[in-house]
Amino acid sequence: MGEQKTGRIEFQTSPDRYRHWRIETDGEVASLIMDVDPAGGLSTDYELKLNSYDLSVDIELNDAIQRLRFEHPEVRAVVVKSGKENVFCAGANIRMLGKATHGHKVNFCKFTNETRLSIEDASENSRQVYLTAVNGTAAGGGYELALATDWIMLVDDRRSAVSLPETPLLAVLPGTGGITRVTDKRKVRRDLADMFCATEEGQRGKKAVDWRLIDETVVKSKWDDAVKARAKDIAARSDRPTDAKGVKFTPLKREITDNAINYSTVRVEIERDRGLATIIVKGPSSTPPSSADEAQAQGDQFWPLLLARELEDAILQLRFNEPTVGLILFRTEGEAKAVLDYDRFIAVNGDHWLMREVRHYLKRTLKRVDVTAKSLIALVEPGSCFAGTLAELLFASDRALMLIGRRDGDNRPPAAIVLGEANFGPYPMGNGITRLETRFLGEPESVAHAREKIGAPLEGEQAVELGLITVAYENFDWDDELRVMIEERVSFSPDALTGLEANVRFAGPETMETKIFGRLTAWQNWIFQRPNSVGEQGALKLYGSGVTPTFDRERV
Amino acid sequence: MGEQKTGRIEFQTSPDRYRHWRIETDGEVASLIMDVDPAGGLSTDYELKLNSYDLSVDIELNDAIQRLRFEHPEVRAVVVKSGKENVFCAGANIRMLGKATHGHKVNFCKFTNETRLSIEDASENSRQVYLTAVNGTAAGGGYELALATDWIMLVDDRRSAVSLPETPLLAVLPGTGGITRVTDKRKVRRDLADMFCATEEGQRGKKAVDWRLIDETVVKSKWDDAVKARAKDIAARSDRPTDAKGVKFTPLKREITDNAINYSTVRVEIERDRGLATIIVKGPSSTPPSSADEAQAQGDQFWPLLLARELEDAILQLRFNEPTVGLILFRTEGEAKAVLDYDRFIAVNGDHWLMREVRHYLKRTLKRVDVTAKSLIALVEPGSCFAGTLAELLFASDRALMLIGRRDGDNRPPAAIVLGEANFGPYPMGNGITRLETRFLGEPESVAHAREKIGAPLEGEQAVELGLITVAYENFDWDDELRVMIEERVSFSPDALTGLEANVRFAGPETMETKIFGRLTAWQNWIFQRPNSVGEQGALKLYGSGVTPTFDRERV
Repeated sequence: MGEQKTGRIEFQTSPDRYRHWRIETDGEVASLIMDVDPAGGLSTDYELKLNSYDLSVDIELNDAIQRLRFEHPEVRAVVVKSGKENVFCAGANIRMLGKATHGHKVNFCKFTNETRLSIEDASENSRQVYLTAVNGTAAGGGYELALATDWIMLVDDRRSAVSLPETPLLAVLPGTGGITRVTDKRKVRRDLADMFCATEEGQRGKKAVDWRLIDETVVKSKWDDAVKARAKDIAARSDRPTDAKGVKFTPLKREITDNAINYSTVRVEIERDRGLATIIVKGPSSTPPSSADEAQAQGDQFWPLLLARELEDAILQLRFNEPTVGLILFRTEGEAKAVLDYDRFIAVNGDHWLMREVRHYLKRTLKRVDVTAKSLIALVEPGSCFAGTLAELLFASDRALMLIGRRDGDNRPPAAIVLGEANFGPYPMGNGITRLETRFLGEPESVAHAREKIGAPLEGEQAVELGLITVAYENFDWDDELRVMIEERVSFSPDALTGLEANVRFAGPETMETKIFGRLTAWQNWIFQRPNSVGEQGALKLYGSGVTPTFDRERV
Repeated sequence: MGEQKTGRIEFQTSPDRYRHWRIETDGEVASLIMDVDPAGGLSTDYELKLNSYDLSVDIELNDAIQRLRFEHPEVRAVVVKSGKENVFCAGANIRMLGKATHGHKVNFCKFTNETRLSIEDASENSRQVYLTAVNGTAAGGGYELALATDWIMLVDDRRSAVSLPETPLLAVLPGTGGITRVTDKRKVRRDLADMFCATEEGQRGKKAVDWRLIDETVVKSKWDDAVKARAKDIAARSDRPTDAKGVKFTPLKREITDNAINYSTVRVEIERDRGLATIIVKGPSSTPPSSADEAQAQGDQFWPLLLARELEDAILQLRFNEPTVGLILFRTEGEAKAVLDYDRFIAVNGDHWLMREVRHYLKRTLKRVDVTAKSLIALVEPGSCFAGTLAELLFASDRALMLIGRRDGDNRPPAAIVLGEANFGPYPMGNGITRLETRFLGEPESVAHAREKIGAPLEGEQAVELGLITVAYENFDWDDELRVMIEERVSFSPDALTGLEANVRFAGPETMETKIFGRLTAWQNWIFQRPNSVGEQGALKLYGSGVTPTFDRERV
């Protein structure tokens, strides 16, 4: 988008800076109110009318969802609603979509999908359960937002409806999980789903309930009371603590230069001429606190939480602000023992609300790694600490390389990886199983073998033997092998690599989440390349111009 | 392809007309020998060197697989091998891919995927088990063909390898099931799969076995004996009959005019100006034979078999030869009882090898309907026979419309659908469950309710009530409602409809098959639109020209 207001897209924000959302808490119930500032978008190319959204709106939503989980342990139900009269949300802004580059559209959709999945994660795993009070029409992405919540109420004013008009209006799909959630979450009958997705005006009233598109419809006079009662009812079933104090998210401390982003626990080094970036994760420099209360007192400086926030920001920075970086190298620095001590601390205190939040935040951040459209290569060298949680970066990578023995003049012990319980459960991938289970789909006994090695330092050859590492090289070969591998990788077509990785990374079971990122997103990306949508005569380009799009009628 | 030799792509062939394959049978073992005639392709634009293939090669392969099942009940193991020295198969012809339209590429890949799935269906469900004797290099689609078989042997001549070089060489994916079968069928570890798919020369020898890419490697001196022994061993485990006589496939009787294709049990009427075609399936005009032997004596005129062959041909004709037809209307004519009688006959004689084949052929044909990229609307009117097997067409359709009551001047009873056991098991979709189970994913009790109605004629309102029909109209409204629905449907973007249908039709579980058609195919189709592959400087266009492709390095 040529007229983007700032060069760098920024994901850090806070409620006092929101232009599009308000968080209002009232004891155990919070309201998340969408009230989009038409002039508050990322670009001056469009106005965000009728609560339509662009990335700037979703960045705030993502921030709000995270903060509600951490800053408001007392909140057990979150009501999503609109701050505008008669409209809930008109979906993604169409002028924005019409003007955006293909790359931005794809990245935008991925991020919004992740945000909606984080709503479901909050409902399911934090028992901070979301419901939507659709107090006006929810069209397209507006209804898709509602679909991500556990309960959908629609006001019965004989006008407000839910709809997915993308296909008839714009020649694209309801691609932010819309179709998948209609068929696989709400399990709407396929012919009714087809009718619904082909009907611009959508559905309302009893029929919307009968088709399972919404959970209830309430007349206007009883609306406010019904929403309150429903939220209370949902809150009552939560297991969240009643007397806990939240952890405040302070601004991330970052130093951004032209070629690096330096956080506390993460450093990103960018080599644009080589098409790569290195993410160096630093292990903890201290031992874990002595109790969960003490961890809570550390607030957002508690190492695993800081790591989750910083790694997430680093990944998003690379996705959105470094499109020509096609390869990420993962390195770590620190003591394996220190990482494992923190893992153990989180596990031992697993019943504490904050530890639960931290674990799920790390899980979500690792999932962001999984769906990042860049090649991932992990490098295990002396001085690294690929252990427990940080070893997940190895298993999230397309390849992991390990150095055998020592480097000349380096007195540190040979590189070793160390497995922990964290590699066997707490961080499932989107497909519902762990990275090691996915890795060893064809040899499940290898998971058990790996488990027997928990806590033992595994050097190069042994790690290869156990199937945990792709290849190990002696110091003599390391530099050349790595250079050749990198040069080869970045010489391939970026698109073919994106498709290859999207298929190779997700063996095994499929879930609604993998269906959204695999099937639905892939079809949407295809459609986002088709002239019928994005050509000069395409529906996305011509929308609002009064000119009817001209379609190539050939079916592919 | 401008220089296609014939206007109409033809799927009917027979071994005496093959230019690319030979079938050699030797008792319980058959050899399927690929020996592609370089000049035998569909177009004069390219030569099919090194056993590379285009659609013409796959049409013969598809025919051979069907005939082996029906004409050779005695064959228990099929060895796929090459008739050329030192090369097994070089995969899809690259010049063909470079010149083909997007639509042809997509349809070609879909058909080749269906062919490979039919190999797996033969191995699993007919116990006519395929193995591959890779007696030379198997690259790309060549290895993908091997992947579809149950056992892969590779000659160890220090040269022959299996490879998937699509990404490094052509900037596309191994899209004929390649990646999915590597990760989900052979369960190759993801980092090894990544390495393999990024290595032009592929893998051979012990490493290929260790990585699970092949099942065994055999030195050249022992090759012939080893292949024979392995085939014998596999054959010994089959349950196919030893003394049955095959059913010969005779040429389909068809009359093709400009706007219609008339078969015995199927008639296709094409209205190109409206963008639609009607497929009318005629129920049986006779009662079933008195025994399975008598059915066998009827040969390929046995009604359900004839139906499978004709409906399959009709679907393929519409896919390849009528690209501007975006909508198929399904109609039936005949007696529900007659259809159900045939269904019962097949079920009662389910142990007979031929009835097993017929059932699976019908299953495969219905699956072809499921993945056809055209909107499907079934019309239930007086005189129709949507019963049992033919009722599957209702449940395969995006919508089903039913006429309530009678038409003026029509004395036939009101339209009714009749369920049979055939709707509750024998014809699973690619997702592994029945169309009714998929339809009622959100209300499994509706499957049980429907089952209670087996055999009862269900008229419009009752069928709607049971959730079997999308909508029912009185005669008074029928014509207008149908006309509006059709006009609206064909006014939408064909691409958006393809994406919508590919998502809406496959709710519920995912299998390797649905992953191939959903995830892998969708990404490949996206890549087939990307300039890095198909642009003037793209890898597919420039392959073989000596010019290195220029890639847009931006990662999407």
